[in-house]
Amino acid sequence: MPSTAESATPAPFTADDYRARMARAARSAAEAGLSGLLVAPGPDLVHLTGYQPVPTERLTFLVLVEGQDPVLVVPTLEAPDVASAAGGAALRLRDWTDGKDPYAVTAALLEGRGRYGISDNAWAMHLLGMQRELPGTTYTSLTRTLPMLRAVKDERELARLAAAGAAADETYREILKVRFSGRRETDVAADLAGLLLRFGHSQVDFTVVGSGPNGANPHHEAGERTIEEGDMVVLDFGGLKHGYGSDTSRTVHVGEPTEEERRVHDVVREAQQAGYEAVRPGAACQDVDRAARAVIDDAGYGAYFVHRTGHGIGVTTHEPPYMIEGEEQPLVPGMCFSVEPGIYLPGRFGVRIEDIVTVTETGGRRLNNTPRELAIVE
Amino acid sequence: MPSTAESATPAPFTADDYRARMARAARSAAEAGLSGLLVAPGPDLVHLTGYQPVPTERLTFLVLVEGQDPVLVVPTLEAPDVASAAGGAALRLRDWTDGKDPYAVTAALLEGRGRYGISDNAWAMHLLGMQRELPGTTYTSLTRTLPMLRAVKDERELARLAAAGAAADETYREILKVRFSGRRETDVAADLAGLLLRFGHSQVDFTVVGSGPNGANPHHEAGERTIEEGDMVVLDFGGLKHGYGSDTSRTVHVGEPTEEERRVHDVVREAQQAGYEAVRPGAACQDVDRAARAVIDDAGYGAYFVHRTGHGIGVTTHEPPYMIEGEEQPLVPGMCFSVEPGIYLPGRFGVRIEDIVTVTETGGRRLNNTPRELAIVE
Repeated sequence: MPSTAESATPAPFTADDYRARMARAARSAAEAGLSGLLVAPGPDLVHLTGYQPVPTERLTFLVLVEGQDPVLVVPTLEAPDVASAAGGAALRLRDWTDGKDPYAVTAALLEGRGRYGISDNAWAMHLLGMQRELPGTTYTSLTRTLPMLRAVKDERELARLAAAGAAADETYREILKVRFSGRRETDVAADLAGLLLRFGHSQVDFTVVGSGPNGANPHHEAGERTIEEGDMVVLDFGGLKHGYGSDTSRTVHVGEPTEEERRVHDVVREAQQAGYEAVRPGAACQDVDRAARAVIDDAGYGAYFVHRTGHGIGVTTHEPPYMIEGEEQPLVPGMCFSVEPGIYLPGRFGVRIEDIVTVTETGGRRLNNTPRELAIVE
Repeated sequence: MPSTAESATPAPFTADDYRARMARAARSAAEAGLSGLLVAPGPDLVHLTGYQPVPTERLTFLVLVEGQDPVLVVPTLEAPDVASAAGGAALRLRDWTDGKDPYAVTAALLEGRGRYGISDNAWAMHLLGMQRELPGTTYTSLTRTLPMLRAVKDERELARLAAAGAAADETYREILKVRFSGRRETDVAADLAGLLLRFGHSQVDFTVVGSGPNGANPHHEAGERTIEEGDMVVLDFGGLKHGYGSDTSRTVHVGEPTEEERRVHDVVREAQQAGYEAVRPGAACQDVDRAARAVIDDAGYGAYFVHRTGHGIGVTTHEPPYMIEGEEQPLVPGMCFSVEPGIYLPGRFGVRIEDIVTVTETGGRRLNNTPRELAIVE
């Protein structure tokens, strides 16, 4: 059965794409007053080079300095794998063998009294090694200093996020057809995971199925509870497709809802719409949170909306920017993030509605487009 | 079909087990001149508490100081999950909510001018946060200062490692029955993964299938090469069962081997036996390496044994101690590690034979017990 979500693999990123991203990152670092960046394996390195080594204790660092070629310090054993990564051709390699000191190899690329940004998830062991090797150099975490490093997506990245969103939408359309009543949350969660994979995801990050009172715990994933007639059920699922994330939530009801359940769902839907409509270039992240929260506050449920309104998405399913009070970061075309208000009535039920939204030149564009009305399931 | 590998779940670890491990770790830290330990999510935390949170950027640290109750600094959202971990009852929780400063919360538990060990894989962002908060305090990586923290296994851990080893042995016995010739390495690798899972593994870490010339690259995993009559094939596979690791290698031959292939295999088998026989309390790690290497050197293949002889195993499949020249760490009863010499003839073939061995009061005991003779497959 053909579907939009089963479209062909998107055009691969090229070495030039990665070269441009690394140049932008090095420029941002210089503008922030940094001597350069030390990028560790993980999402930063994937975004900047396409290279994703198997996790290991051996040191790998991408060293970015404005006006210089990017250099990857890498274990000799891993060097052949770098060449096969899409961004490999944009890198000079400085490999080190077991027995050599990788901190000395890296330090030779840094200023003795510089100040460098370092990936949040770099290993403490490696940071301590660099601090021993160059005592006059200081470091700051990338999220602290350059939180928006990966936030603005280019057209090829947006195409992948849209494809991941379309696959999540297909998953939602299919899950409406399965039986909920009499099955455990974990059974429906397994259905969601299977559908995400069927629609092209390579990795499932979360499959929340919060039925009845479990839906009132925003941290709940899926448990042994058997779903019953009369339950509200929060569904929140996503993962990676072609290396980019999906994340969507809809709340469904088993059989006919009560008037209160409909009313709460309507409030969340209006809040989600208000958050979406607040998205435009130049608005602050906190404006999106405020717009969604105001609807819920006005309806008298403010005390039951206990989390931020959204988070960024890209090569991971949770990253900056965050839609939260106090975050004054202005929105920029190409940013992608969730808008996901919710209401959680302890011991009773919860409602959450979530789309990924990207900032356009004039406003926002949703990457999830399934109906937001309360769906009735069996 | 009953088998030793399908034995019942081992007795669960208790809060007392974890309490004892944490007390031992705190004592080791004090003996090493440290004020205490900062343990991050990952293998150190699993070993000491049984708690394994979903990876997140939010700070979680176990603070261990001799003579004090262990304290876990944890995001408020995660606190309920800690209670359900086996070691949860042995911990005092100090939770922090979004918006609070987790570094201040952690710093309140530390000395202002102390020196602490920190997990290798703690996030650089969190180490930098602690360094900002307590400028007079210093840190050292656990592997650098207390490399043997998790190296000595207690009886319950040994039982799990033995069960994982037995499951890997079952996997090897079954893989001898499948067809090799005419199938790709990745097909046999998939068979290995399926068998490990069938025999109770929850996680497959690696399934190396190195046929013909691919076997001569010790870094090779499994590729598209079609296995042919006349190939030597290196098999090296393992993962986690009940939270503890397996790792075994055997080299098989498709059809009748040549005289040279038999001779090289015999040399590796003798080297592996010599390495095993060198295991006893008080011997140094490097003695195991030397014993295995001497056999290969004497046979004239010294230049083709290009890696260390072994590595520790526990809640991970690769950890200290390392059986390598220069490692003078004495062996202690309860340590577990691989003994895995190999010979790699570039462009032609490779041979590796590997067992996990645990140190007993008088010598060594193998946790892998399948035949080490060259098996002929179809």
